Amino acid sequence: MASASAPIDFRSDTVTQPCDDMKKAMISAPLGDDVMGEDPTVLKLESMLASQFGKEAALFFPTGTQSNLCGVMAHCHGRGSEVLLGANSHLCLYEHGNLSTLGGIHSRQIPERSDATLDPVTVEKMIRVDDPHFPRTDVVCIENTHNVLGGVPLPKSYIDSLSKVCVSNNLKLHIDGARIMNACVAMDVSAEDLCENVDSVSICLSKGLGSPVGSVLVGSEDLIYLARRQRKACGGGMRQAGVIAGAGIFAIENNVERLADDHARAKAMASVMKSAGFVIDKEPQTNLLFFGVPDGSKLMQEDVIARADDAGILFGGGYSGGTRCRIAIHKHITDACVKKAGEVLTDVATGF
Amino acid sequence: MASASAPIDFRSDTVTQPCDDMKKAMISAPLGDDVMGEDPTVLKLESMLASQFGKEAALFFPTGTQSNLCGVMAHCHGRGSEVLLGANSHLCLYEHGNLSTLGGIHSRQIPERSDATLDPVTVEKMIRVDDPHFPRTDVVCIENTHNVLGGVPLPKSYIDSLSKVCVSNNLKLHIDGARIMNACVAMDVSAEDLCENVDSVSICLSKGLGSPVGSVLVGSEDLIYLARRQRKACGGGMRQAGVIAGAGIFAIENNVERLADDHARAKAMASVMKSAGFVIDKEPQTNLLFFGVPDGSKLMQEDVIARADDAGILFGGGYSGGTRCRIAIHKHITDACVKKAGEVLTDVATGF
Amino acid sequence: MASASAPIDFRSDTVTQPCDDMKKAMISAPLGDDVMGEDPTVLKLESMLASQFGKEAALFFPTGTQSNLCGVMAHCHGRGSEVLLGANSHLCLYEHGNLSTLGGIHSRQIPERSDATLDPVTVEKMIRVDDPHFPRTDVVCIENTHNVLGGVPLPKSYIDSLSKVCVSNNLKLHIDGARIMNACVAMDVSAEDLCENVDSVSICLSKGLGSPVGSVLVGSEDLIYLARRQRKACGGGMRQAGVIAGAGIFAIENNVERLADDHARAKAMASVMKSAGFVIDKEPQTNLLFFGVPDGSKLMQEDVIARADDAGILFGGGYSGGTRCRIAIHKHITDACVKKAGEVLTDVATGF
Amino acid sequence: MASASAPIDFRSDTVTQPCDDMKKAMISAPLGDDVMGEDPTVLKLESMLASQFGKEAALFFPTGTQSNLCGVMAHCHGRGSEVLLGANSHLCLYEHGNLSTLGGIHSRQIPERSDATLDPVTVEKMIRVDDPHFPRTDVVCIENTHNVLGGVPLPKSYIDSLSKVCVSNNLKLHIDGARIMNACVAMDVSAEDLCENVDSVSICLSKGLGSPVGSVLVGSEDLIYLARRQRKACGGGMRQAGVIAGAGIFAIENNVERLADDHARAKAMASVMKSAGFVIDKEPQTNLLFFGVPDGSKLMQEDVIARADDAGILFGGGYSGGTRCRIAIHKHITDACVKKAGEVLTDVATGF
Repeated sequence: MASASAPIDFRSDTVTQPCDDMKKAMISAPLGDDVMGEDPTVLKLESMLASQFGKEAALFFPTGTQSNLCGVMAHCHGRGSEVLLGANSHLCLYEHGNLSTLGGIHSRQIPERSDATLDPVTVEKMIRVDDPHFPRTDVVCIENTHNVLGGVPLPKSYIDSLSKVCVSNNLKLHIDGARIMNACVAMDVSAEDLCENVDSVSICLSKGLGSPVGSVLVGSEDLIYLARRQRKACGGGMRQAGVIAGAGIFAIENNVERLADDHARAKAMASVMKSAGFVIDKEPQTNLLFFGVPDGSKLMQEDVIARADDAGILFGGGYSGGTRCRIAIHKHITDACVKKAGEVLTDVATGF
Repeated sequence: MASASAPIDFRSDTVTQPCDDMKKAMISAPLGDDVMGEDPTVLKLESMLASQFGKEAALFFPTGTQSNLCGVMAHCHGRGSEVLLGANSHLCLYEHGNLSTLGGIHSRQIPERSDATLDPVTVEKMIRVDDPHFPRTDVVCIENTHNVLGGVPLPKSYIDSLSKVCVSNNLKLHIDGARIMNACVAMDVSAEDLCENVDSVSICLSKGLGSPVGSVLVGSEDLIYLARRQRKACGGGMRQAGVIAGAGIFAIENNVERLADDHARAKAMASVMKSAGFVIDKEPQTNLLFFGVPDGSKLMQEDVIARADDAGILFGGGYSGGTRCRIAIHKHITDACVKKAGEVLTDVATGF
Repeated sequence: MASASAPIDFRSDTVTQPCDDMKKAMISAPLGDDVMGEDPTVLKLESMLASQFGKEAALFFPTGTQSNLCGVMAHCHGRGSEVLLGANSHLCLYEHGNLSTLGGIHSRQIPERSDATLDPVTVEKMIRVDDPHFPRTDVVCIENTHNVLGGVPLPKSYIDSLSKVCVSNNLKLHIDGARIMNACVAMDVSAEDLCENVDSVSICLSKGLGSPVGSVLVGSEDLIYLARRQRKACGGGMRQAGVIAGAGIFAIENNVERLADDHARAKAMASVMKSAGFVIDKEPQTNLLFFGVPDGSKLMQEDVIARADDAGILFGGGYSGGTRCRIAIHKHITDACVKKAGEVLTDVATGF
Repeated sequence: MASASAPIDFRSDTVTQPCDDMKKAMISAPLGDDVMGEDPTVLKLESMLASQFGKEAALFFPTGTQSNLCGVMAHCHGRGSEVLLGANSHLCLYEHGNLSTLGGIHSRQIPERSDATLDPVTVEKMIRVDDPHFPRTDVVCIENTHNVLGGVPLPKSYIDSLSKVCVSNNLKLHIDGARIMNACVAMDVSAEDLCENVDSVSICLSKGLGSPVGSVLVGSEDLIYLARRQRKACGGGMRQAGVIAGAGIFAIENNVERLADDHARAKAMASVMKSAGFVIDKEPQTNLLFFGVPDGSKLMQEDVIARADDAGILFGGGYSGGTRCRIAIHKHITDACVKKAGEVLTDVATGF
């Protein structure tokens, strides 16, 4: 990196550092052994989120990958189970295929429509009938916001249309809510309302919300009972977990509303970059912005990344079959960062 | 069934009965304990097919489902493995999701092109890089002939184009050859030539070839060593299996060339049915014929099936999201059967 | 092998050849596609054995390994399941660990008492309480006769004592009945009576009963429904399986009573061998005889096996941590065979 | 609880609270995204422990359950794998059977000798030969100190004798070192020396060492590469994990030597309790003390636990088939606590 000052890191909203107040919350949180169910801070965080999402119960996990895995394994409690999910979902692409490799669950992948949704009619057609040739369809998983299709928030009307299919076919509906709070803020809807008709949500505390570690699964008491067993099996039963759950409570209390600023900055960034000539398929609706180089450009994606990196602007590529880069806005990205990045990228774009 | 005579069964090419000569072959075959590697008939069948397919070794299985499963598990010998396969392949649709539910393998499903092939460029793009987020892509599976896309035989040129992708990315290429002999006959190519650049083929003896039971996996000695271990684990290590392998030898020696007759009858059937008004998307190239009722027909698929059934003509529906029926031609289907079925279906079609 | 005539094969009761009448039964059996539930011979065999064992339903399998696997997987229908079984059971030792490697089931192994039984008190102590640290105990598996502990038949009183533990703890009781008919004959008890209080039995047709291929699982309709699904997943759903089920029916009808002769010959063999100086820990009660060389013998187990082999007498070693050989009596072993083998082994024993 | 003051908690050494200095270490640790390999505190902790144990590499985990699981899964990289472990090991008893239920690994359980060791001769006899009937033996797991057999530290000479068996049979040797530092301190041996000949060690930071959360696996670079992949699959790839790793570094630097005090207090406690009439099979060598009520006592184990609890002394029972209670000494247990507990228990024992 040639830049004298610290680089501006757009690689992911997972790179944030806890602020001093969050750290204070962590070390002043009352602690106990959570494997014994005695950590008051973990219990408080679980209770807060269960309540906010209108569900009976909640469970704290070290990561969203584990929260998704245990949630889905809990729904797929019987042998020979199948889930339906988006072909570009995080669960399908970035979680090591763990539903299958650890959970013994078959997944069927449905190409998302351009608005990041799964066609409910297609979903319904893919549900298996009772026949030994087939696994048993148990769960539909969706991702909200949908990361690689553009950080797209999925509205309640869509979720409810899928829920209807699930209810009438005796399936469960799970949301990978790694950025569910971004969805709520972007669509100005409460978590409870948005998730009214889903069976479980995995909520990540370490993305836009800025916690260092942790995710929470919410759902029915029966589901959480089973998920807790699987959490132990996966090695997610931590002891004085209140030290990190305390950060989660702080994040929930302090870092949700400010997501609107991230969304505004993503829009601002998109606007500058479009002017500079980058290909932007979709206006950002939340904190993620995907873009490519124009057809026929003299620069490759790699060149763009490398030149920006040299100028202290970090982001990643390789999305959508290697054709798109991603900029992720988070709490360390100020207006000044956006301005600086816009200048750098406008400069880079002159090479197209 | 209202028909006085025995119904004509087009439901599957798996419904055939062994002829007297095949039965004679079964009971005169020398036998031994194949778990101890001492059944001469099994060894002979394995040796015959290894040789015909130009591979080092072969292994006899009770079913093609197990032959596919053990072959792919043997290729995916390491933990955290992924296969790429067609979204409409038998392996994805009709084998209970067993690669995942038993084998702990993640599968990614690629929508086939209309000619039943997978785009090699897409395949290559889906191969994972080395990163803990991802399982390791180990195998590409194709099906030849491709059943639900129309009994389509896939040519060597296509297979070789996929093989190139596999070789240059250190993947294995497996063929579910449930009807590989139909493919060979339809394209007038030897099995050895067609499968020159694949790593394994599962060959079914109980479809068009008319054996009552059995499939064979061919591949390298290393692969067969591993597949034999998995066969034991799956419960496919039979004792005096020569009683059924003997039927397989008979089938290979006597029932391959006659598949051309099945293919001709499928074409004849298609021609009559098209005239009668059925929707036939694709001329049959082998022994399978898929068809639907015209848009706006007064008859539903279920009606067509029921009325034909009443007249002694059996076939199944529910393909392609419930829009297509399938007619499978096999050794019990004579020209007279085709004629009779054509008349019945022409009659049924008057109700459209 | 130096012997001029064919060797006498005591290696296993799996090495038998079907007699002409059994072959006749095979090729005259009416056939159908059993995947479609239409093979009348398979249905007849299943019905016969369900009835003989006093159970609601039955399912035909290519092997006992698969019948055990699918039976236990069906009992362990939920995620995170554990079985209790004998440390020297076939399921633990010789089935590739498939309950775990394919079925994702944890097994806990209980050292058998010298009479081949599991102490019911120990079994009850090992049942898990409901806690995320623990899998859920679902099944107890026993083996009757118990192979490597001496072909020991386990009496109804013992089975019932285990059954009581299972019932009061909501577990299922499964019998690996690879040689259950030997047990019935040895103890002069009906299969129905002996298995009155068990939930499932896997019955092997290809050991003492002399069929070339096949096993049958009996149990409740609910169990068989689930086992049928797993059979498909494991690749055990065969087509015209009546060709082998026909042998099974013949075996059940013709080869059960004669097991008493095998048992008598095992006793005769034991008597001669004891006189010759072999160590025989346990009088054979059924068709299996385990023996060793005396402490301080100049011959190793390997020498005994090799010298007997040279004289045309085949059997295997390596049992009980490599200290015991096994002689298995079956329908090809006549009194003359026993006499000849006795002479050879007496001769070999002079080298001790 | 009738006691006015806070109860004294002997239930586990996992119940400790971080001290102020440890908390300071946590919030002053430099942080980064550890999924991207950029958390300097995690890297420092990993490097420290790799070095202390004389291994090439290390990996931080949220729990010891996951560290064990991923370590063993990494050793068992191939399909159809088996581990050998103690019948009373934590891995067998308290980790949800996850080697099997998630990892698809078969485990075989060897009853420990009274000194908590596995007989190397037995271990060697249980290693499988290459045959499809058998899974492939890949790993031997031991636990040091061995918890439920009495907190027994296992000496290097024993470990090395097992290592010899492993090396000559191409197996790996893994130590569940949940309390490995207790073992080092008790036997006055360095971790590097003690673990010289093992392939991996899972080290827990949240037991005697007093961290709130976390374990570390040490081993070869190849092993850690595979374990990192499995950690992601299990959902253990945390982001700014330095907030908890910082506590781990503090623990390693400050809380190891003081384990000697815990051990001395366990001995003191044992002495008082023996005098009071409790049955103590084994002098405590580390921080764990197991005890029972005398045969013929009027009090049941439950009574003892309840009466102690009423007096503010907490500990758990149910060990060794429900016959033993456990007292765990940790950094919150002072001499005064021991004195108080001794008085209470002496008082309780008068009821025997």
